[in-house]
Amino acid sequence: MAEGSVTIEEQEAGSTVLRRTIDYQPPRRPSTWLIGRPLSTADAPHQAIGKAIGLAVFAADALSSVAYAPQETMVILATAGTQALGYAVPIAIAVTVLLAIVTISYQQTVYAYAGGGGAYIVARDNLGELAAQIAGAALLVDYTLLAAVAISSGVAQIVSAYPPLFPYRVEVAVGLLFLIMLINLRGVRESGVTFAIPNYFFLFMIYLTVAIGFIRLISGTLGPVIDPPPIEAVLGYAMQPVTIFLLLRAFSNGTTALTGVECISNGITAFKEPRTRNAAITMIWMSVILGTLFLGITILLHQIGAVPSAQETVISQLARTVYGSRNILYLATMIGTTIILFLATNTAFADFPRLSALQANDGFLPRQLTYRGSRLVYSRGIVTLGIIAALLVIIFRASVTALVPLWAIGVFLSFTLSQVGMAHRWWKIGHLQPGQEIKERGSTLQFQPGWVTKMMINGFGAVCTALVTIVFAVTKFRDGAWIVVILIPALVAGFFAIHRHYQNLGKHLSLKRDSIRSHITRHRVILPISGVHEGAIAALHYARLLSSDVTAVYISIDSAEAESIRQKWAVWGEGVRLVILDSPYRLLLEPLLQYIEEIISNRQPKEVITIVVPQFVPRRWWHNLLHAQTATWLRLALLFKPGIIITDVPYIVN
Amino acid sequence: MAEGSVTIEEQEAGSTVLRRTIDYQPPRRPSTWLIGRPLSTADAPHQAIGKAIGLAVFAADALSSVAYAPQETMVILATAGTQALGYAVPIAIAVTVLLAIVTISYQQTVYAYAGGGGAYIVARDNLGELAAQIAGAALLVDYTLLAAVAISSGVAQIVSAYPPLFPYRVEVAVGLLFLIMLINLRGVRESGVTFAIPNYFFLFMIYLTVAIGFIRLISGTLGPVIDPPPIEAVLGYAMQPVTIFLLLRAFSNGTTALTGVECISNGITAFKEPRTRNAAITMIWMSVILGTLFLGITILLHQIGAVPSAQETVISQLARTVYGSRNILYLATMIGTTIILFLATNTAFADFPRLSALQANDGFLPRQLTYRGSRLVYSRGIVTLGIIAALLVIIFRASVTALVPLWAIGVFLSFTLSQVGMAHRWWKIGHLQPGQEIKERGSTLQFQPGWVTKMMINGFGAVCTALVTIVFAVTKFRDGAWIVVILIPALVAGFFAIHRHYQNLGKHLSLKRDSIRSHITRHRVILPISGVHEGAIAALHYARLLSSDVTAVYISIDSAEAESIRQKWAVWGEGVRLVILDSPYRLLLEPLLQYIEEIISNRQPKEVITIVVPQFVPRRWWHNLLHAQTATWLRLALLFKPGIIITDVPYIVN
Repeated sequence: MAEGSVTIEEQEAGSTVLRRTIDYQPPRRPSTWLIGRPLSTADAPHQAIGKAIGLAVFAADALSSVAYAPQETMVILATAGTQALGYAVPIAIAVTVLLAIVTISYQQTVYAYAGGGGAYIVARDNLGELAAQIAGAALLVDYTLLAAVAISSGVAQIVSAYPPLFPYRVEVAVGLLFLIMLINLRGVRESGVTFAIPNYFFLFMIYLTVAIGFIRLISGTLGPVIDPPPIEAVLGYAMQPVTIFLLLRAFSNGTTALTGVECISNGITAFKEPRTRNAAITMIWMSVILGTLFLGITILLHQIGAVPSAQETVISQLARTVYGSRNILYLATMIGTTIILFLATNTAFADFPRLSALQANDGFLPRQLTYRGSRLVYSRGIVTLGIIAALLVIIFRASVTALVPLWAIGVFLSFTLSQVGMAHRWWKIGHLQPGQEIKERGSTLQFQPGWVTKMMINGFGAVCTALVTIVFAVTKFRDGAWIVVILIPALVAGFFAIHRHYQNLGKHLSLKRDSIRSHITRHRVILPISGVHEGAIAALHYARLLSSDVTAVYISIDSAEAESIRQKWAVWGEGVRLVILDSPYRLLLEPLLQYIEEIISNRQPKEVITIVVPQFVPRRWWHNLLHAQTATWLRLALLFKPGIIITDVPYIVN
Repeated sequence: MAEGSVTIEEQEAGSTVLRRTIDYQPPRRPSTWLIGRPLSTADAPHQAIGKAIGLAVFAADALSSVAYAPQETMVILATAGTQALGYAVPIAIAVTVLLAIVTISYQQTVYAYAGGGGAYIVARDNLGELAAQIAGAALLVDYTLLAAVAISSGVAQIVSAYPPLFPYRVEVAVGLLFLIMLINLRGVRESGVTFAIPNYFFLFMIYLTVAIGFIRLISGTLGPVIDPPPIEAVLGYAMQPVTIFLLLRAFSNGTTALTGVECISNGITAFKEPRTRNAAITMIWMSVILGTLFLGITILLHQIGAVPSAQETVISQLARTVYGSRNILYLATMIGTTIILFLATNTAFADFPRLSALQANDGFLPRQLTYRGSRLVYSRGIVTLGIIAALLVIIFRASVTALVPLWAIGVFLSFTLSQVGMAHRWWKIGHLQPGQEIKERGSTLQFQPGWVTKMMINGFGAVCTALVTIVFAVTKFRDGAWIVVILIPALVAGFFAIHRHYQNLGKHLSLKRDSIRSHITRHRVILPISGVHEGAIAALHYARLLSSDVTAVYISIDSAEAESIRQKWAVWGEGVRLVILDSPYRLLLEPLLQYIEEIISNRQPKEVITIVVPQFVPRRWWHNLLHAQTATWLRLALLFKPGIIITDVPYIVN
């Protein structure tokens, strides 16, 4: 089973503590082939990255949103007819302004939380546990939906370029999702190159497309989309008038472009020194790229008269119109877009397990989520995300349009909490004495001049994102946002239930309590036997080893058998007391339980009762079906009795 | 939980054995409402019955076969066209002759086995275990099919009288089957009246129908069936010529009339003295009634031109033709027929559990089948039969025609084994010295004059039934008999596998072996801890109670935590040795297992190792999800290690 041996043995003089490292080499299993050989804790990588690589590592989530945010804006507008699609451009401008506000607000977070300032940590340090858990719930929901939306959008791009795959889009999406899960179980080293190449390839292709598009637009050679997909009756709505409500719904969908903006503030520790400055500058780059692409693409889509459709994405329509046909440049653009979407999915697999480990460490999720698996990744979190995201893809038939209403509400809720937290932090900083320093879990507070302005900036950001959250919840409520509106409070309630359990346990287990239980003074052993045979006698020997106060118990269903037991016990029982219990209703367990309860009720304080049960361990599993399994039932029945300890003495029959 | 108290306490002078009767009153549970309050062993009934009641109790199985045996004969003949139905009468005569032969042969069994002479016991005593287990397998299959066929035929009668129920026949059959199962779980007292009334009601009605039928036939007023059901293409066969094979297939179906003839020989002990004489005479009555009814019904069916059909049974066609319409007499006949078929189903529920308990007692089936449930019946056998029979009804869509090919082969196989056994018994008797007596398990052998004749009678019966078995297996092979031809050997193999396990176990557990293991000389205790907390300290106190040789083990994943444990142990560890195992691969279980195996491999003879595991018992089941369950995994991993005993010390958190 194990192949290693003990290599180090160390014992301090006069101490009873020994320390050893077991050179245990985990054996090869089927999973080794899938996810690689186990890694030792010492193998954990430490690596710092620059701005160019940092952009590639953290920007996939944000930048990939240009692949779906314009389309989802248009999906809503299209319900009011093709002429309403003209509203896409002003909406894109509004989204870009919002992006600028959020970016400026988050700049301050990056500088404040050099150790990583996700919404969970900022809310925890500044707004308390409840706000932190709300942010945690919102983010976990958000990451799950990111995985589902990005993989679905990625598959939509593939299907656009290769339509025969359309009927299999759910299968393809689930398959790819599990592939990305497997890659993450192996452990993704965030070594820049893997990320940089596809990221910059995407950026190059998409900028090329936009640039050529504008050149052809200005030179007047950009015509409309040839053979656009048919406009669909989206979500079953009949043709609608253009109302404020409709425009706000379209705007809400457009705000999905902002998802992923906060990524860099989570990952500040990965940057080279000067960390915060590098991270802050990278974030500005990212926002500028995202904003220009989002606006540029939306304008071009409007010019070519692209039609939002599940059959062919607007990016595909744009690329084939700009390049004139489905040629090599078109293909390169589609490949780049698809890959960036898969990288965005990958982001979810990096962030979800990390956040759930953080919450588990704070005692709001099962502690197992903090254990790192054989490849040094939080395997349980990765698998959890993979399964839930796959279920979402299956339930929503890999439709981005169906998934989007569930999504961005969590993102904006966490934005709001993060910025409110930052605003409160400035307030606290403003009320410190100069030179005073307060250490919080995530950062250190020192008085700074100009705190009012900074508080205003974060406060303004918070108000804006709070408004978007409300707009989103209201306009998307019927489309699916209600699920999240119910789910987030339910999750928060669950987190606190878990927390109460751990707190309660900690309190009970704490050795700092006044009284440590005093020692046991009497030890009674009860030995239920089914007959006088080798198994019973082996258990008898063990029972006598534990205590001199042993009582064997036999449940009698048949008088003749009881008599035979009595005679055999006289020979083999070694003088130990045997109680024969007649069971008139032919029950085995209940009379024994009653007898034990009788003994418990007469028990003295500081007395412990051990029940020694002879248990056959058969050679083959099906042999278990040939035995009554009294020992198992006894264990289940006595599990909740304090002061009772059950010991099975296995008797292995070869 | 329990409401009783200890009432009797008895201790012999100088003895270490105490005997008690616990006045345990089983509590009321949901099942009490369904199957009645538990019965004490002392409540078991002892009652003897006379011939008239005995006929009612044991004849339902045999007599009910007039409801389907003529129909199933005609089903086969109908495949050769309506004119072939004329062969039904000569076939009925052949079946009646076979019935006479079997009855005469079984008369001798009744006289020989006063304690009950089923095929299993006769085969066991005279032909050995293999033949007995073949008989046992054949009979268990047979009883299961009896339950399925009789309930299906009963529902077919209901459906004939009330055609709108036809589409729901499977649901009705399964529902009634579970009702009969429930009645049997309550415990059927074979008190004659319950059986006598419906039995004699059926006999009266069916004889009335046959008698009036013949009177109208002779007086020339018996016309053909009005609106007979359409003749169906049975089992997908095209119209066939009348061949010997076809006639043999029809004859095979007719022989289902003989099922149940052996019932009385199983139940001899229920009769009043002179037991054997009463039983033998009752058997003759039964055969005469069965033979005359079978013949009479077949002749009348032929005269009225009845057509076999799943839509309307031939009994229904006969009754409405004889009585002129669907009047009260017709209804009474149908009700009587239906009830006798349900009583036949009930016979299966009496015999299957009894036989399986007999086989379990001989060690060929799981011993649990010998336990009597709260109502003093073999509940496990009853439930097993109910489930398998219900599955058969569902799979074969409650079709008697589909079920019959599986059925009678088991019956005739057991007839054959029983009569071969009897013939061999006469041979043994013939070779005894006068006055010599041999006691076998089921009967006593003494020399009897005329043993050759008796041997010839049983031998002739055996040859006849063996021929029928072969005819049945060959002619019905394609229709489903192949299932039974495979199933019976498979069951027999299973029985012997079970038997080997019990024998092996008995040999290992036997205290008559040369060496009883000598006493344990050293007791090491290993205490894996996950931290220094109340649960661990409680386990430590318990561990120290067991032995002075205690080693605590802590698996370290994190160096800082290990250091904290080391410091706490110095304070709380009571001087007990602590081993800290560094686990570089962050595994908890594997390093612990390797350490334990190391200790096992260095173990001295007669040394026992106990692993004391502190185990949290959380208040709510879902709290288990919040803990790593190391104790459970440890138990599973060490289950098969000899000389290792695992004890959980529960720590209950309130």
